[in-house]
Amino acid sequence: MPIVGMVGGGQLARMTAQAAIGIGATFRVLAESPSESASLVTHDVSVGSHLSADDVSAFAALCDVVTFDHEHVPNAVLTSLESAGVLVRPGSAALRYTQDKLAMRERLVALGAPVPRFGTVASVADVLAFAGESFPVVLKAVSGGYDGKGVWVCASPEDAAAVIAGAAEREIALMAEEYVPFRRELAALIARSPSGQGAAYPVVQTVQVEGICREVIAPAPGLHPVVAEEAQELALSIASALGVIGLLAVELFETRSGALLVNELAMRPHNSGHWTMDGSRTSQFEQHLRAVLDLPLGSPSLLNVPGFTVMANILGGDDPDVYDRYIHVMAADPAIKVHFYGKEVRPGRKIGHVNLAGTPEDSVDSLRDRARRAASYLRWGTEDGE
Amino acid sequence: MPIVGMVGGGQLARMTAQAAIGIGATFRVLAESPSESASLVTHDVSVGSHLSADDVSAFAALCDVVTFDHEHVPNAVLTSLESAGVLVRPGSAALRYTQDKLAMRERLVALGAPVPRFGTVASVADVLAFAGESFPVVLKAVSGGYDGKGVWVCASPEDAAAVIAGAAEREIALMAEEYVPFRRELAALIARSPSGQGAAYPVVQTVQVEGICREVIAPAPGLHPVVAEEAQELALSIASALGVIGLLAVELFETRSGALLVNELAMRPHNSGHWTMDGSRTSQFEQHLRAVLDLPLGSPSLLNVPGFTVMANILGGDDPDVYDRYIHVMAADPAIKVHFYGKEVRPGRKIGHVNLAGTPEDSVDSLRDRARRAASYLRWGTEDGE
Repeated sequence: MPIVGMVGGGQLARMTAQAAIGIGATFRVLAESPSESASLVTHDVSVGSHLSADDVSAFAALCDVVTFDHEHVPNAVLTSLESAGVLVRPGSAALRYTQDKLAMRERLVALGAPVPRFGTVASVADVLAFAGESFPVVLKAVSGGYDGKGVWVCASPEDAAAVIAGAAEREIALMAEEYVPFRRELAALIARSPSGQGAAYPVVQTVQVEGICREVIAPAPGLHPVVAEEAQELALSIASALGVIGLLAVELFETRSGALLVNELAMRPHNSGHWTMDGSRTSQFEQHLRAVLDLPLGSPSLLNVPGFTVMANILGGDDPDVYDRYIHVMAADPAIKVHFYGKEVRPGRKIGHVNLAGTPEDSVDSLRDRARRAASYLRWGTEDGE
Repeated sequence: MPIVGMVGGGQLARMTAQAAIGIGATFRVLAESPSESASLVTHDVSVGSHLSADDVSAFAALCDVVTFDHEHVPNAVLTSLESAGVLVRPGSAALRYTQDKLAMRERLVALGAPVPRFGTVASVADVLAFAGESFPVVLKAVSGGYDGKGVWVCASPEDAAAVIAGAAEREIALMAEEYVPFRRELAALIARSPSGQGAAYPVVQTVQVEGICREVIAPAPGLHPVVAEEAQELALSIASALGVIGLLAVELFETRSGALLVNELAMRPHNSGHWTMDGSRTSQFEQHLRAVLDLPLGSPSLLNVPGFTVMANILGGDDPDVYDRYIHVMAADPAIKVHFYGKEVRPGRKIGHVNLAGTPEDSVDSLRDRARRAASYLRWGTEDGE
């Protein structure tokens, strides 16, 4: 069996390690420390920095194919690996679009994909020229943001001025985007293999709070099949055009008029796909491994069709000891599946998630309520803490 | 999170390691070598012998609770752990019944559980006295058998004489059992926690070939609900009477008249429960961990209700390189889930299994056919190799 190496030791690598056990692939991880989420459970751990060309290439020498649990490996490091003949999946040419939101938006426009109106901004005057009277306006760091970090919704020119000043101080390039008053957020997750095979998961609804994904409902309730198919085809065509190998998550706005706009792209396992671990025939982590290994892709279909599966993220609360609360949650709802990341508990930090696959009789609302109660109890010790 | 230690480094420990990642428990394994199935994927591996009191107790000192992937740890080693205050789950008092089939049969009779007629035998005369004219008769090693090893179906007194002679030479104690002309074999898998909570999986049908489990169908097709409940209650009551903590698998004969007879007991994850990885809300491996950690048990219900799930074991063929055949199987049937054990391929050796969770529309026969084709191809490179 080939050896897959994943750069990054977070929870995505941890859950990929779990999936690798099943398919029998040898899995290695390059983590920043032996105590990271994936380091704690992976047999073959290399400790080093994803920013160091030396560390990454020493790691790659131990692997047949290299993939990633985040998008923070510098593009120059990726291209030097490729020049040395390493199989890098996804490759540098695709990953650059996750590292440069401006390039990504420009590329999507060129592909004819629907995106919010955007522009480059370096000054308050630029923001005013972009937005006119239309506040709020969204300012984003061109590189490096995640989980709501690097995104600022500015209600006024004064807000924008403060963001511009802060960004200038830290030498962060910004772009502006129209504020989309969406009906809800959706995500289309697909996989693409080097052989060109594609597989699309059912389109899901995501619920973000302060930029952090808190809840996912699979499939998105009430989404018209034509729109769902449109979202899947959009994701598959973006993956094909950008040459993505592995997973591609396309975060979408469903506007009040029912149109779709692309918000973000991720080329790795994604929070919006955690539900697949308990609700789909093939988890996103196994699917990513299959794709980067150029194995035939697995069925992305729902296991509990025609039921829904709900995922809720567990955020850390003030009390670092979750174990007693864990027992309560398991006792209260035996169908809840808890996935812990082995992370130190810090307030607001993602430390795990729960999945709840419903039966055909369970309503979406009841499933959401049960999943939220479990996540809330694990955070606060009370079922209605948020 | 507590640290669970599993003695034994086979595929059951490997799949338990996989489940431990999800629930966030720290998992250690005591394996005989660094290349065993579980050693290859577990972060914390101790190498040592399960027969050595020193090795096992040094291992136990690293763990909060100790459990097992086989029943071969000598009872004296178990009791010395217990005397030292180690949490051993299941405990020595329960495990002795998996180590001594005669004691197990006698205990089951005392409990009123239905078992085949049995007796101790040390000579051909004893066998003749037991069997009379009723050949075939089954001779079994009282201790140490598994996967058909240690079980001999004797068609004649001459067969029995040969077994008796061979056993005497190797100092193996034997027992005799009536040959049960069963309609089919079933298995009832349950979990029991120290708090006394029990959870019963749906009763399954198992298909053995030459003593090796080859196929499992969940739930057992056409089994009358009253009989299924009887089997579950039997398993729960045996677990309670014997003080089993963790999983208990009760292998059963369904006789031609429809009665149930207990064949074997196992107090660990069991081949008849591998289907739960892809067909139940809680896999048997997670359930075993929950039970030995005294966590509330998970829901054992089917995910794809009212569909069936079929498991087929993958045995090794002559060609040690399964990878090319793997690709074929994945391409031929994207719903097939392959679980490889990372074992060196040897003819006839269990090297993995496939699971196939059906939709409500899939017939049992079509699912069995698909699972068998996949397992056959992985062994022989042809879909009708067996």
